[in-house]
Amino acid sequence: MSKPPKNAAWGGRFALGPSEIMQKINVSLDIDKRLYAQDIAASLAHAAMLARRKIISPEDGEAIARGLVQIKNEIETGLFPFRAEHEDIHLNIEARLAEIAGPAAGRLHTARSRNDQVATDFRLWVRDAVDRLDARTRDLQAALLDRAERHAATIMPGFTHMQPAQPVTFGHHLMAYVEMLGRDRGRFKDCRARANESPLGAAALAGTSFPIDRDATARDLGFDRPAANSMDAVSDRDFALEFLAAAAIAGLHLSRFAEEIVLWSAPNFGFVALSDAFTTGSSIMPQKRNPDAAELVRAKTGRLNGDLVVLLTVMKGLALTYAKDLQEDKAPVFDAADTLELCLAATAGMVLDLRVDEAAMRAAAAAGFSTATDLADWLVRVLDLPFREAHHRAGALVKRAETLGCDLAGLPLAEMQKVEPRVTADVFAVLSVEKSVASRASFGGTAPAEVRKAIAAARKRFL
Amino acid sequence: MSKPPKNAAWGGRFALGPSEIMQKINVSLDIDKRLYAQDIAASLAHAAMLARRKIISPEDGEAIARGLVQIKNEIETGLFPFRAEHEDIHLNIEARLAEIAGPAAGRLHTARSRNDQVATDFRLWVRDAVDRLDARTRDLQAALLDRAERHAATIMPGFTHMQPAQPVTFGHHLMAYVEMLGRDRGRFKDCRARANESPLGAAALAGTSFPIDRDATARDLGFDRPAANSMDAVSDRDFALEFLAAAAIAGLHLSRFAEEIVLWSAPNFGFVALSDAFTTGSSIMPQKRNPDAAELVRAKTGRLNGDLVVLLTVMKGLALTYAKDLQEDKAPVFDAADTLELCLAATAGMVLDLRVDEAAMRAAAAAGFSTATDLADWLVRVLDLPFREAHHRAGALVKRAETLGCDLAGLPLAEMQKVEPRVTADVFAVLSVEKSVASRASFGGTAPAEVRKAIAAARKRFL
Amino acid sequence: MSKPPKNAAWGGRFALGPSEIMQKINVSLDIDKRLYAQDIAASLAHAAMLARRKIISPEDGEAIARGLVQIKNEIETGLFPFRAEHEDIHLNIEARLAEIAGPAAGRLHTARSRNDQVATDFRLWVRDAVDRLDARTRDLQAALLDRAERHAATIMPGFTHMQPAQPVTFGHHLMAYVEMLGRDRGRFKDCRARANESPLGAAALAGTSFPIDRDATARDLGFDRPAANSMDAVSDRDFALEFLAAAAIAGLHLSRFAEEIVLWSAPNFGFVALSDAFTTGSSIMPQKRNPDAAELVRAKTGRLNGDLVVLLTVMKGLALTYAKDLQEDKAPVFDAADTLELCLAATAGMVLDLRVDEAAMRAAAAAGFSTATDLADWLVRVLDLPFREAHHRAGALVKRAETLGCDLAGLPLAEMQKVEPRVTADVFAVLSVEKSVASRASFGGTAPAEVRKAIAAARKRFL
Amino acid sequence: MSKPPKNAAWGGRFALGPSEIMQKINVSLDIDKRLYAQDIAASLAHAAMLARRKIISPEDGEAIARGLVQIKNEIETGLFPFRAEHEDIHLNIEARLAEIAGPAAGRLHTARSRNDQVATDFRLWVRDAVDRLDARTRDLQAALLDRAERHAATIMPGFTHMQPAQPVTFGHHLMAYVEMLGRDRGRFKDCRARANESPLGAAALAGTSFPIDRDATARDLGFDRPAANSMDAVSDRDFALEFLAAAAIAGLHLSRFAEEIVLWSAPNFGFVALSDAFTTGSSIMPQKRNPDAAELVRAKTGRLNGDLVVLLTVMKGLALTYAKDLQEDKAPVFDAADTLELCLAATAGMVLDLRVDEAAMRAAAAAGFSTATDLADWLVRVLDLPFREAHHRAGALVKRAETLGCDLAGLPLAEMQKVEPRVTADVFAVLSVEKSVASRASFGGTAPAEVRKAIAAARKRFL
Repeated sequence: MSKPPKNAAWGGRFALGPSEIMQKINVSLDIDKRLYAQDIAASLAHAAMLARRKIISPEDGEAIARGLVQIKNEIETGLFPFRAEHEDIHLNIEARLAEIAGPAAGRLHTARSRNDQVATDFRLWVRDAVDRLDARTRDLQAALLDRAERHAATIMPGFTHMQPAQPVTFGHHLMAYVEMLGRDRGRFKDCRARANESPLGAAALAGTSFPIDRDATARDLGFDRPAANSMDAVSDRDFALEFLAAAAIAGLHLSRFAEEIVLWSAPNFGFVALSDAFTTGSSIMPQKRNPDAAELVRAKTGRLNGDLVVLLTVMKGLALTYAKDLQEDKAPVFDAADTLELCLAATAGMVLDLRVDEAAMRAAAAAGFSTATDLADWLVRVLDLPFREAHHRAGALVKRAETLGCDLAGLPLAEMQKVEPRVTADVFAVLSVEKSVASRASFGGTAPAEVRKAIAAARKRFL
Repeated sequence: MSKPPKNAAWGGRFALGPSEIMQKINVSLDIDKRLYAQDIAASLAHAAMLARRKIISPEDGEAIARGLVQIKNEIETGLFPFRAEHEDIHLNIEARLAEIAGPAAGRLHTARSRNDQVATDFRLWVRDAVDRLDARTRDLQAALLDRAERHAATIMPGFTHMQPAQPVTFGHHLMAYVEMLGRDRGRFKDCRARANESPLGAAALAGTSFPIDRDATARDLGFDRPAANSMDAVSDRDFALEFLAAAAIAGLHLSRFAEEIVLWSAPNFGFVALSDAFTTGSSIMPQKRNPDAAELVRAKTGRLNGDLVVLLTVMKGLALTYAKDLQEDKAPVFDAADTLELCLAATAGMVLDLRVDEAAMRAAAAAGFSTATDLADWLVRVLDLPFREAHHRAGALVKRAETLGCDLAGLPLAEMQKVEPRVTADVFAVLSVEKSVASRASFGGTAPAEVRKAIAAARKRFL
Repeated sequence: MSKPPKNAAWGGRFALGPSEIMQKINVSLDIDKRLYAQDIAASLAHAAMLARRKIISPEDGEAIARGLVQIKNEIETGLFPFRAEHEDIHLNIEARLAEIAGPAAGRLHTARSRNDQVATDFRLWVRDAVDRLDARTRDLQAALLDRAERHAATIMPGFTHMQPAQPVTFGHHLMAYVEMLGRDRGRFKDCRARANESPLGAAALAGTSFPIDRDATARDLGFDRPAANSMDAVSDRDFALEFLAAAAIAGLHLSRFAEEIVLWSAPNFGFVALSDAFTTGSSIMPQKRNPDAAELVRAKTGRLNGDLVVLLTVMKGLALTYAKDLQEDKAPVFDAADTLELCLAATAGMVLDLRVDEAAMRAAAAAGFSTATDLADWLVRVLDLPFREAHHRAGALVKRAETLGCDLAGLPLAEMQKVEPRVTADVFAVLSVEKSVASRASFGGTAPAEVRKAIAAARKRFL
Repeated sequence: MSKPPKNAAWGGRFALGPSEIMQKINVSLDIDKRLYAQDIAASLAHAAMLARRKIISPEDGEAIARGLVQIKNEIETGLFPFRAEHEDIHLNIEARLAEIAGPAAGRLHTARSRNDQVATDFRLWVRDAVDRLDARTRDLQAALLDRAERHAATIMPGFTHMQPAQPVTFGHHLMAYVEMLGRDRGRFKDCRARANESPLGAAALAGTSFPIDRDATARDLGFDRPAANSMDAVSDRDFALEFLAAAAIAGLHLSRFAEEIVLWSAPNFGFVALSDAFTTGSSIMPQKRNPDAAELVRAKTGRLNGDLVVLLTVMKGLALTYAKDLQEDKAPVFDAADTLELCLAATAGMVLDLRVDEAAMRAAAAAGFSTATDLADWLVRVLDLPFREAHHRAGALVKRAETLGCDLAGLPLAEMQKVEPRVTADVFAVLSVEKSVASRASFGGTAPAEVRKAIAAARKRFL
């Protein structure tokens, strides 16, 4: 083979030498040290199984277990000597175990490879993250349910196209998010169930010739079963992709709510106000109260989308089985878990913190002929007009009111009868926002009684 | 209000007038006409319920039903007069129904809005697409299982880092994909279950004052239940996002397999050959047989990622409830469904079409000291060396063999004993690829007997 | 080689046979037929060069040219017999040319391959698309400039955090978009310049042994030069990626403006109204005027992001040179070009169509103590307070006014002097929105005189 | 306004209190401290201008400047007291300046806002990053050019569809990347030029009433001019988006090269070997040498795609002007700059480190009838066959050779004449890979003489 050219004198042209570059690109310790607890748990389960199957001696098994417990303690008390030259958390723990447990440490890696070890640790981490996010999402649902209960009858405009369309209640609006968050939890739950198979024992890629007991280690680690194919077990990152997709969708829901908080707290809405805890002032405009927390939640959906795209790109077209490319799986997952957890906490905080201006909400709900649909429905129900015709007639009445500068409830009956002679004074019973809201009593509708039923049902489903 | 400036003479500067622009940007008929069957099914269910609840007369209900059936027939026989001026499929059907059924047609829209109608139709479509994709994925699993069975003992190299690492069987390798596809089906199934709630009756956003029966329409349309919140029902597109995420992950699996087919059919692998059905020749290089179908499957994961990003972007920060932005939901979902269905069919086709060169696979598996791990494991098992030490010793033996220009099975015992005096002739029993493969009999491992068990189990789980 | 298993009877299990699948996945005619003009132009240039270099006879050159001109005419008049069995536009033209020009047709492909041919055609198409988009962006700038000129002094709130912060003029606000669009044009221009190299003559990948003249064909086709490396020329799609990135950024600008139009036309802003040309009514809410066109422009940024992600994914990790994966390059580029062109036209249409409610804008600008910064600046400038102190003092004055229920201009001098005794009646000269706006006369500021200068300068730079 | 519900007792249900949440979501110091040098440079320029324009006194100007220089020194020597309660780098510096310079510090913020300050700092940072990346890309080009020169005549297979197609030289192949990197540099250069406008003086959003000199501060900071519109200046992040797009495209080029290194160093290619500096061994397979650095470079294109998607999502549909969402702009840009810089260094390192097995390359180039195109071209050139006919004839000769088990150069003349009687012994002059390569002497072709010319030209263009 030809040698590299002589003029390739490292350090002449290049700022970094090869070992520094490799160190920077290859070392993952700063990221994967977050796997320490999972790594130790998995090693404990593996060592116990090895001893039970007499693949290692009981003494070695105990020495390993004692060492691992000590290491966990060292890490959690800040005494563990992390060393970058052991490039990742796994090798750091392995090296330290050798110091503590001596030759026994070397036997821990019997019938195991870094490939199944990393896959196991990471699955355990994702499982824990799912549980954490489930709890935080539940907290947010709880906060929303409390709020929704208080405001089951608080009238506000229901918007389509960012314009008031029909009156709804604030409680009903909040319950929409309780539903979304319920699906978010469902997605994470499904992800957890699918992820909850143990790669341990897949070894490098092909399984092992040692008489291991994969069921036992799976059970000890809380997995539902061992993964059925060793090659799949070490090369697949579905659990991470599905986690990232669930996080992106959940973040998107939060971005929608955040947008609404930003809008609602603007002066021309004035529906809600956030306290100083979640807003900041302006360095030059003393009168501003900026909804920073909501804006950041809205923005962070970008990070979650980005994290998902990272791993979708990394995995594209990778031949089986393990490739070092897979090392890039953890940074996006950790970032997504942290980001979503923070956004959930911030959103719950804002839900608790919000002050609601019910009068402003009601006033906005009453503006803009928001009961025009109620009028059209009355024309159908009482006068038996076909829907499309009732729609046109209601439109004509709105135009009449607009011309006269009044709202629909204020339009004189005589004026109404110019458009539709059969209209009677009964119609006014549906033209107030309260009547409108109360009338929408179909299942899942905004009538306060329905909203209260929905809240009660949601408490049972979700809390 | 100030008028637009006079010099804004349309048509002077601009190629398109306002109505043409609005026509082009607003009309969705070319895309959403694919919803026709779902739209008609939902309207039939709605009309029947309206009649049952006496919201419309039995005669009107029948006239509507007859008209809708006729329209379905017209569409399916190519006789339906699609008109772009009715911007979408829903208005096209509505307008045609008015021609056929007269005034009764106008009553179909009682207690319904375009918002819940579109959401219902689209959910039904996604549900159908999930069923279609599930069947196609199952087909591919079936094809892989047949292949895997035939090749349960066909030895090939197991790769890590794109380099031969340990011998595996081709059947075992294929079974990794059966597992991935099983999870893909699980994701689609979960998506379907979560999506299977009926928006019908949410009306524009707030529910309705008509005494509708949402349970009935839900049941008639095969939904599990009506959606619990009317605002959520019309503004949420989780079902589409989750579908797109599941499709992207499934496409990624296919891209990995496609990459392997591309590599395996290259002459320096030579493991498989595709027939002319899935390859093309070169216009200038007569000797080439290009794996076009595999390359296209590999590439199309890009479309699926893109489709997902489209809707994640569209939905970001959208205030509730319906906004016209949501009209951009269908194009990516239709594209993803078509793309994935085609890729599944093409991949199944290639699995059936492949010719396997078993000799080439075995030769590659035997090269490169691929049983070094077996040697290390023997040193652990028989000589009781700690794993890390056995690993170093095996490495030394590989170097020795490399120097002598032989493989491990060809390394004389005397040479081995220079590195580790306790090695006996028994070691040769693990150094052939057949022995290596057969020894990896842990659950999920590559031993042919294990692979056969895995195939039998997978047939039960998946077919 | 082992044959495929017998039970792989196509058509039994599978809906599509291999040739149908390959047809569906491989045929690109429906997409790439849009390249016909570019393909013919490139072939004309190539044939003319071949004849000049005596690689083909003058007679063959003429026969080819005549045939190509006829084909172009056939395509443009709808008479061309497209045939899917010739999978793409290039083979369709080639086959037709053989019918028209006989054996001469076969000589057109001397010293050329499909690889350099496709790369050339596609570059020409992207170049044309850039020119089209440049013209449309310029049109939009022109419409904005006209509007900005009319409203150079129309006062509206300047927003930060979606809340009024300081008064600005509507003209100034619009000019922000003129700047963004100017950069968009710059990006497309740079993309065009970088793309404008001719791949023709790269042949399959290695160049050719025929004595071709790449400079000549490059010149004939309007390229700046031939691409310098034949392998790069056939495998690179930078020009498409850069085009897609430029389109995504441009679409993002339009999405920001679209969001503003949606907000501004909502009743609680009421700044602008769009005519029926760009809005739609609601099927159930007669009073609504939905800004559909703006919402669609806002949403379509999702498509553009998706299109970019498609090609970034497709190209990831592709070994050189040509791979069939590259066939997936055209769909996203065509979609992005069409989408952006439509969004530009729709936005320009809305700019022309907008009716502006100047009174509503001014009223909103005056609300919320929007001249607090002017007050703080006055304290700095006149009383020589350090900025941070002036800021705190202005904040105290705002609170005082809030308590008294007046705005800053209405706060009595005596009240002001309670906070800062040195304040004089001169301060009122900066507290009206007109004074505020006029005072911000720094370069690029919102003072109407500055805005008018900026408009004049922009006309020179951009039109 | 209604108060938050009483049962919202913070700390009961929630792990984090509001101030902790806001601290975590709002504080950006850990990220934006990287802007310290740019922040100080911009403040120095601003203060000097304020003093020159007599907006502040010379003494204050000097006190500010001295303080800022001291702060820079403190930061760079690790003595600066960073405090998280001052949420970002800007407020940390401001607070420290107040300690050092007293009341004068408060005058620095005259005629400036955080909005223009942050935009200025970040543009300066991106500009520096572009310069750094340009230098690193140039380094990589230099390394490739040296390598290409050494291997201008080293024959290897040119691949299409991952299969050998025609012989090329290794130098020619490497030069394809020199071209790609040249375009990458061009994109960054264009990004830099477009970004190089000064936002300073835009103040919060509207400009300022102080008589500032924006040209002066722009000039002092190396900007080409002040940004023309104050609203655009504070709300636009085009420079960051364009930077991220350029980085993603550049990363994609590196991923393609990384894929090739991974393939080429696999044993069944065996074209190159990386030293231990860029590879790692396997924990269980002693014989493996894994190309980790190349795999990581290949994977990291995922991060770059993700970073781009983050900001494209964040910016979508943001109303003007500044919103807190924009705080999410820096993390992806910093990550992309770091990632790309590292990937460039790692790739250059591998280019220098590679050992090339010329014999293996040549052998692979000669296999597979790789000179079939040369044969077809000979039939055209010498026998004047139409190209398509020559192509078919060459195909027949390949099949003949395949049947006889020889390569084209080994096919007896008599056998050739059975297919095409007019073939003469002259044909053998084009059938060796050396002759093939040498014959492709069209501009940009792979003939060694052409490659050497291309190298010389590239040295002038790029170094």
